[in-house]
Amino acid sequence: MNPYIAEFIGTGILILLGTGVVANVLLPQTKGHAGGLMAITTAWALAVFCGVVVAGPYSGAHLNPAVTIGLGIAGKFDWAMAPGYMLAQLGGAMLGSSLAWLMYREHFDLENDPGLKRAPFCTDPAIRNFNTSLMSEIIGTFVLIFVILYISGAKLESAEATPIGLGSIGGLPVALLVWVIGLALGGTTGYAINPARDLGPRIMHQILPIKGKGSSDWGYAWVPVVGPIIGCALAAILYLAVGA
Amino acid sequence: MNPYIAEFIGTGILILLGTGVVANVLLPQTKGHAGGLMAITTAWALAVFCGVVVAGPYSGAHLNPAVTIGLGIAGKFDWAMAPGYMLAQLGGAMLGSSLAWLMYREHFDLENDPGLKRAPFCTDPAIRNFNTSLMSEIIGTFVLIFVILYISGAKLESAEATPIGLGSIGGLPVALLVWVIGLALGGTTGYAINPARDLGPRIMHQILPIKGKGSSDWGYAWVPVVGPIIGCALAAILYLAVGA
Amino acid sequence: MNPYIAEFIGTGILILLGTGVVANVLLPQTKGHAGGLMAITTAWALAVFCGVVVAGPYSGAHLNPAVTIGLGIAGKFDWAMAPGYMLAQLGGAMLGSSLAWLMYREHFDLENDPGLKRAPFCTDPAIRNFNTSLMSEIIGTFVLIFVILYISGAKLESAEATPIGLGSIGGLPVALLVWVIGLALGGTTGYAINPARDLGPRIMHQILPIKGKGSSDWGYAWVPVVGPIIGCALAAILYLAVGA
Amino acid sequence: MNPYIAEFIGTGILILLGTGVVANVLLPQTKGHAGGLMAITTAWALAVFCGVVVAGPYSGAHLNPAVTIGLGIAGKFDWAMAPGYMLAQLGGAMLGSSLAWLMYREHFDLENDPGLKRAPFCTDPAIRNFNTSLMSEIIGTFVLIFVILYISGAKLESAEATPIGLGSIGGLPVALLVWVIGLALGGTTGYAINPARDLGPRIMHQILPIKGKGSSDWGYAWVPVVGPIIGCALAAILYLAVGA
Repeated sequence: MNPYIAEFIGTGILILLGTGVVANVLLPQTKGHAGGLMAITTAWALAVFCGVVVAGPYSGAHLNPAVTIGLGIAGKFDWAMAPGYMLAQLGGAMLGSSLAWLMYREHFDLENDPGLKRAPFCTDPAIRNFNTSLMSEIIGTFVLIFVILYISGAKLESAEATPIGLGSIGGLPVALLVWVIGLALGGTTGYAINPARDLGPRIMHQILPIKGKGSSDWGYAWVPVVGPIIGCALAAILYLAVGA
Repeated sequence: MNPYIAEFIGTGILILLGTGVVANVLLPQTKGHAGGLMAITTAWALAVFCGVVVAGPYSGAHLNPAVTIGLGIAGKFDWAMAPGYMLAQLGGAMLGSSLAWLMYREHFDLENDPGLKRAPFCTDPAIRNFNTSLMSEIIGTFVLIFVILYISGAKLESAEATPIGLGSIGGLPVALLVWVIGLALGGTTGYAINPARDLGPRIMHQILPIKGKGSSDWGYAWVPVVGPIIGCALAAILYLAVGA
Repeated sequence: MNPYIAEFIGTGILILLGTGVVANVLLPQTKGHAGGLMAITTAWALAVFCGVVVAGPYSGAHLNPAVTIGLGIAGKFDWAMAPGYMLAQLGGAMLGSSLAWLMYREHFDLENDPGLKRAPFCTDPAIRNFNTSLMSEIIGTFVLIFVILYISGAKLESAEATPIGLGSIGGLPVALLVWVIGLALGGTTGYAINPARDLGPRIMHQILPIKGKGSSDWGYAWVPVVGPIIGCALAAILYLAVGA
Repeated sequence: MNPYIAEFIGTGILILLGTGVVANVLLPQTKGHAGGLMAITTAWALAVFCGVVVAGPYSGAHLNPAVTIGLGIAGKFDWAMAPGYMLAQLGGAMLGSSLAWLMYREHFDLENDPGLKRAPFCTDPAIRNFNTSLMSEIIGTFVLIFVILYISGAKLESAEATPIGLGSIGGLPVALLVWVIGLALGGTTGYAINPARDLGPRIMHQILPIKGKGSSDWGYAWVPVVGPIIGCALAAILYLAVGA
């Protein structure tokens, strides 16, 4: 499989599943309504696992521009491929969230609160303060990228790639990492920690004919893009400083 | 062990455990009453794990006609064995759900709602609309089969088989996949994603002398059969198109 | 480590942790009060994992007379060692439950319901009917032993032993198995599926000076002993019949 | 990476994530408010996993003075390095908890109860009785260190280190162990089982300008230091007595 297609499909699966669990837990009359924090964070973690299983051997399964940039800074990824990777990730996120909306459309229609209609698509701060939201996304993404850089250690060719010898459970360490970030660091902004994960679905929220939808909240949209970029850069710099 | 017996026993264990957890969570006066979404999805995932442990080395642990058909289309399974596999899966599902009913019979008897009496046996859409239910089952099964096709990659002889080198934890990737499908894509129809899982227990719901049972809802029964077949075919076709 | 000491210590750890989580979830004013089905079943599963880590390389980590008997019938364990193993398991269960009581003693004292005071020690049917309780314990233990017999396949020297090559995660498959049995088949009797797990702590409930304790319910005590023995025998017989 | 830096960073990640989940679950208006026992214990377990991934290959990932002392007594760690390790662990815990406070600061400010403001920083007994709290911490830490000593068996160079061959999932056994200790043995004192985990954040609670904070409860502070030290010593002694 072509690496760009792998990033597109892998991110598509990630975001279909991630958007899907938020729809299942938040929207009315679903089987998983009010399923809680564990359901959401477990599903996002395993969504990463599935994306890594599919894309890992072909693209290294970045699935996240912050991973691509972090690996680039750490000298583990060819910058020439970065724009294509990031476009593929954005496109995958747009497709995945559209599929989840299609699947849960009747439940979206039953929901009256525009905020809950937008919630499966993109993140939203618990308390509106750009400075602290930005800091939250920086810290969350820093932990994500810093730990990823050690997951495969010096042998790392690509961030979330299947470590040699682990075969199809190679995505498990990253999944466990994303699980704990959601539980521990997701309480303030809902842990975008991935610019494509937030921006792609937000674009679709703007475009799709969602009944009774409200604003796509573009005023907040820069935070889950800029925060993760700063966070991944800091992680790569610390990684280079302390040594592998 | 003969591969057909392996499919029969493996699917029997899968459906005994899967039917069992729904009975435990939904029926009155059980120890796990109101155990919630995490309990149900975790148990179905681990039920797959157990079925794979037992049947994996002997039949490849399809445990699901959608897996058998998907592998057939992908050129990874001999069509001549498919009818036998699918019959064994259906029979196993019938046996497993009967055992779960036997075990929880007193709790079935205490329940007055015929819908809740039927729920452990077969799936039911959250909102009754055949088109969207069919789409949900197609998407859920598509993700299941597409990711399975990459779990063991080019070396795949049988879908959910124990990958070489992982030994008895070889079923873990498929279990994690089923877990996230339940959490993320199970909100609309209860994720049959397996024709045998729904049809076998529905037949038993019709046959068994369940006190105060209502209709077996045969009007809906085609959805969790046709949806998974379409979904697995699409997954196999995309897999062949993008390459392994 | 001597295999009998390994069984004693491993079962002690298993029952300390298992009794502990029930005390944490059921007794008043604990940090985990009302923690629910997932908490209890997850902890019991991981308690098995810990027991296997410690005892696996030395005794095969049976930790359960039903495992010892099942392996004996399947021809995988020397009957001459069985009485010593089972005594060690019973003793470990007595020690483990005593430690958990010591640790949670003030919370036991705050509880007024004698039934809840007994619950951490031993199992209790949701509905009192010896026939169906016995059937439940037979089915639960059957699944436990039958799947264990396939976990390490033909190479199995001891049931829950660390499979070659998996090192310290070798206990994971059995832990996942116990997790799903708790979720799916624990709803009727609370899944003893282990004679030592129920009898040892019941003896301690009788002996220990627990304030305001009620009956140790000896009338039910034979069910979680006889049921698991029948269940493990059936599992071993089916295993021998269908072949490894 | 220098082993002391590895202990500092690894413990920092552990405590950032651990403090973070308690803030997320307990403080008002977070995304994870009232997330429950499973969320807290799962996150602490996975926080250990992340710390081990980063520090494992460089320092053995003790991340806990009780591990350092336990390994020292068991003859598996050079005492000369112990003071540096423990200082690094304390410093990491101070940094990690400060970052979590910074991230959740607005939620800390919204909370009126000084006890809940202190809860993310340090442990607190459910019932105030120094004797039983000390016993709880001894038992919890005993189980932690005793099982760790068997996780890598005779090959153990460092307690929580990545076992050879497991690569980046080498931290999983310790994570599962910490998970079950939290569920089963955390009900009385909130399972410090790590002097640095409690003391470092307690110092920061004293120092940081937390709005409306109450006492740092120094009267209790010795329990989660002394208990774990006694517990790890007992574990190492039993390990030496029964043999590896």
